[in-house]
Amino acid sequence: MTPELWNGFLKGDRISCARVISLLENEPDSRSDVLDRLYPLRKGATRIGITGPPGVGKSTVTAALTKEARSADHTVGIIAVDPTSPFSGGAFLGDRIRMNELTGDEGVFIRSMASREGHGGLSPSTPYVADVFDAFGMDMVFIETVGVGQAEIDVLTCADIIVVVLQPSTGDTIQALKAGILEAADMFLVNKADLPGADMVQESLRFMLEMDTRREDQHLPPILAVSARNDTGMDEAFAQLMQVIERLGDAGRFLAKRKERIEREVIEAMRKILYDDFLAKSGARDEIEQFAVRCAESNQSPFPFIRELSSRVKMEPRNDGKT
Amino acid sequence: MTPELWNGFLKGDRISCARVISLLENEPDSRSDVLDRLYPLRKGATRIGITGPPGVGKSTVTAALTKEARSADHTVGIIAVDPTSPFSGGAFLGDRIRMNELTGDEGVFIRSMASREGHGGLSPSTPYVADVFDAFGMDMVFIETVGVGQAEIDVLTCADIIVVVLQPSTGDTIQALKAGILEAADMFLVNKADLPGADMVQESLRFMLEMDTRREDQHLPPILAVSARNDTGMDEAFAQLMQVIERLGDAGRFLAKRKERIEREVIEAMRKILYDDFLAKSGARDEIEQFAVRCAESNQSPFPFIRELSSRVKMEPRNDGKT
Repeated sequence: MTPELWNGFLKGDRISCARVISLLENEPDSRSDVLDRLYPLRKGATRIGITGPPGVGKSTVTAALTKEARSADHTVGIIAVDPTSPFSGGAFLGDRIRMNELTGDEGVFIRSMASREGHGGLSPSTPYVADVFDAFGMDMVFIETVGVGQAEIDVLTCADIIVVVLQPSTGDTIQALKAGILEAADMFLVNKADLPGADMVQESLRFMLEMDTRREDQHLPPILAVSARNDTGMDEAFAQLMQVIERLGDAGRFLAKRKERIEREVIEAMRKILYDDFLAKSGARDEIEQFAVRCAESNQSPFPFIRELSSRVKMEPRNDGKT
Repeated sequence: MTPELWNGFLKGDRISCARVISLLENEPDSRSDVLDRLYPLRKGATRIGITGPPGVGKSTVTAALTKEARSADHTVGIIAVDPTSPFSGGAFLGDRIRMNELTGDEGVFIRSMASREGHGGLSPSTPYVADVFDAFGMDMVFIETVGVGQAEIDVLTCADIIVVVLQPSTGDTIQALKAGILEAADMFLVNKADLPGADMVQESLRFMLEMDTRREDQHLPPILAVSARNDTGMDEAFAQLMQVIERLGDAGRFLAKRKERIEREVIEAMRKILYDDFLAKSGARDEIEQFAVRCAESNQSPFPFIRELSSRVKMEPRNDGKT
């Protein structure tokens, strides 16, 4: 990172902030340098995951919550982990115009990202973008993610709280959500509540939450009917969101989640460092691919090869802390 | 694995087969032993991922395709990676009765699995269950997975071909699917085609596939309207599925996917072995958690700690192949 870029970031220059994010996304090797500087600047912005099935209006909900947050004088960062999100220019013109109302506001910073980056090796940069927003001075970070694929997991692990958005026609979906997101949700918004059936979705959710004995939190998450497009019920939704944030913060939940996140990050970093070191010391880089070709053509087990590979190097503690 | 269990498996005993699967699921340490024996028995069963948004009828489609496969004298293994699947007893009685028709058939083996096992450390056992079915003599393995979360990725990586199931009302969903599954799909089934709108979904899919210049395969995947519940169009769907399998097999696609799968497996196994070795040699196991607690409470960067950890051990090539 050049001193100019860093000075620009410290002065609150938005273009510098965008460049710092690009640096984290595109140059994994510079991550530790950038983050070493960023981390002490964080003030503890709340990270709010907005998730739910495709088509329920997550972006419109995020935009409406952002407007409420701005009215309450909070600055807001938005991360849209979804190439089809209106924030990324991926949707209908009407939605984009609505989003554009936000983009003229200095207190709002929007960043869209590819949703599938986590798949295939590179560690996902979404959590780091939230760190950048936090260090840049944003009070709240909304992370909007499509309910399909790896991005779902990323939100679960990098958000402090999770808002699940549904709509009246998602009755069938609730059954499937149960498998994962339902337990993790801290709040439900049934969007498009002007359509018939919103009360039934609310009822089903309430029933299912009450039946779920595995929930650690004895408070049931709020379940609100809203229409983000018509701005109906969004003030109440925001007020409830702030109450949930306060309650979970007091209960130490954010700290516990952050601890888990850091632990996972250290473990992942160490696994990567060790494997890279192994490739350098064992000279096995090309061999692994060649083995995979042979193994795919035959019917052999990969385990004898794995055992042989692991016997090629020896790890020793460095007792004196020196080379 | 006891000799009795292995002999039972070799003799085609279904209970032994179920126990071998449980062994792979529950005792990761025994995996390499079990798989070393299983792998040479595989005959190359085709692994067909059945995926799509919740509520579109993936289980019913899987059951209908299975009946077609049985009529053509193929044996079938079904892996339902979804606790809400009727195969797991998680759905309505009517569906369960339909599924039970299959369970009385000796040529069909059904196994349901928790969908979120891949999340949080343990490597997912779904691919190994497919290996067990293959070694047990099944010709085709259907892997049904709910379109939410980590399981999605597992299907993408462990299936030879991917069938995406949609329904007339999933117009909105297609836009979101585009991000991931659309590129990976080898075939589309628009289920519940007795409802209005199936032709529009087919049209939208065709349009989007034709616009997608990134597709490696110049053949557009077949897009069929079916009603699995009423058994409409399923014979044609199965015939087309077999054609796709033949075409992709001839093009070397299965081999290429298997090669990637093996490579990933070797890399993952090595990363785990190295990290476990690191924990043993560095004595850092408890420290990492303690650091995470401190780090969550303060604002410090984890990277100095990661650098310190990685300096604690030294990896050397073992030149002589001995200790």
